[in-house]
Amino acid sequence: MKCQRAIAQSIASLDKTMNRVSVRTHQRKEFVDITRSVADCAERSGIKHGLCVIFVPHTTCGLTINENADPAVVSDILHTLEKIVPEHGNYRHTEGNSDAHIQSSMTGHSLVIILENGHLQLGTWQGIFLCEFDGPRTREVWIHCIKGG
Amino acid sequence: MKCQRAIAQSIASLDKTMNRVSVRTHQRKEFVDITRSVADCAERSGIKHGLCVIFVPHTTCGLTINENADPAVVSDILHTLEKIVPEHGNYRHTEGNSDAHIQSSMTGHSLVIILENGHLQLGTWQGIFLCEFDGPRTREVWIHCIKGG
Amino acid sequence: MKCQRAIAQSIASLDKTMNRVSVRTHQRKEFVDITRSVADCAERSGIKHGLCVIFVPHTTCGLTINENADPAVVSDILHTLEKIVPEHGNYRHTEGNSDAHIQSSMTGHSLVIILENGHLQLGTWQGIFLCEFDGPRTREVWIHCIKGG
Repeated sequence: MKCQRAIAQSIASLDKTMNRVSVRTHQRKEFVDITRSVADCAERSGIKHGLCVIFVPHTTCGLTINENADPAVVSDILHTLEKIVPEHGNYRHTEGNSDAHIQSSMTGHSLVIILENGHLQLGTWQGIFLCEFDGPRTREVWIHCIKGG
Repeated sequence: MKCQRAIAQSIASLDKTMNRVSVRTHQRKEFVDITRSVADCAERSGIKHGLCVIFVPHTTCGLTINENADPAVVSDILHTLEKIVPEHGNYRHTEGNSDAHIQSSMTGHSLVIILENGHLQLGTWQGIFLCEFDGPRTREVWIHCIKGG
Repeated sequence: MKCQRAIAQSIASLDKTMNRVSVRTHQRKEFVDITRSVADCAERSGIKHGLCVIFVPHTTCGLTINENADPAVVSDILHTLEKIVPEHGNYRHTEGNSDAHIQSSMTGHSLVIILENGHLQLGTWQGIFLCEFDGPRTREVWIHCIKGG
């Protein structure tokens, strides 16, 4: 397992309300830092105050927020999730990726972040990660911003 | 443990903003597929673009998104959560359902899904599940859709 | 480990859309009941129907909903998270708090709660907790309410 934290690159606007970001993963298990892509979408929405919702339409990957300064942090998270939910176990699902399905339900498929003065409100050390549990694949991240008030 | 995936049936509109869906569970631990009920509420809201929030007002059940094609997937998730958090342990809470409280905090109590063109935006293999950890009971699921823009 | 459930006290309105609640923690690991502070912010927003989003801008604490009647419940959740993710393990991150980073990704950093008739919609037994995994510290909780319709 390697922790790749490449920035997702291709952003294709689907329509004026929902953006789809394509994220290429390179390992079976890795966390990809998508903070910049999400922040770009949020800023281009033109919304000053509101919410930014991030959603992955998959069942073997997830989303999380954690430290993106020291890459050892997400490496520790991944290793621990692999220890708690081993790849090979007494699973009924025959596709060999039950661990990935379970890990995706443990991290979750959506995040909600506050938008203030046109910017995503994150803590100093926080980054947004796509959690790949059954790669390598091309994943999608859906981003939708909504105006408050 | 059996994985029952009955569709929740009774939808009673509380008022124009929040819907309550009643879900009957039949085992101590089971995942119930509530995708159709949530999609129905979302479509009947008449909202084209926005968010759909799903919330369970309980402390011994949760919500998750995962594959609803092969029932072995949610069975594997449940079995693994039971292994990680055993029913009988060195717990202080004397009601005998500490495992259920812990599992509910691990899956979470709310989900946020994007609404686009009047439809819930889910991935091809994604379904929405109520995670019963201390049934059988009659549970409630609260659904609230909000307009974007 | 002790389970302190003090009510967060100091609420300083940042501006008209996002509130910051300061929460002082007193143990390395503890759950702090912040239900009253969140409800106060929600009610003072003047919003009748909508959503209340709660977010922690940290990477070693989280948020959860669970029972706030018997303090043994959150004590059991904390103890179990400590068993699943031990403080001392084969971690790469050298700050000695990898367990806290992992536990924060397991509980999550945001919650979404429905607002109805000007009140936070929670179940009878539900409380909102800040999950401190690497205290004692002064933490922030960000609260943003958004109008539905």
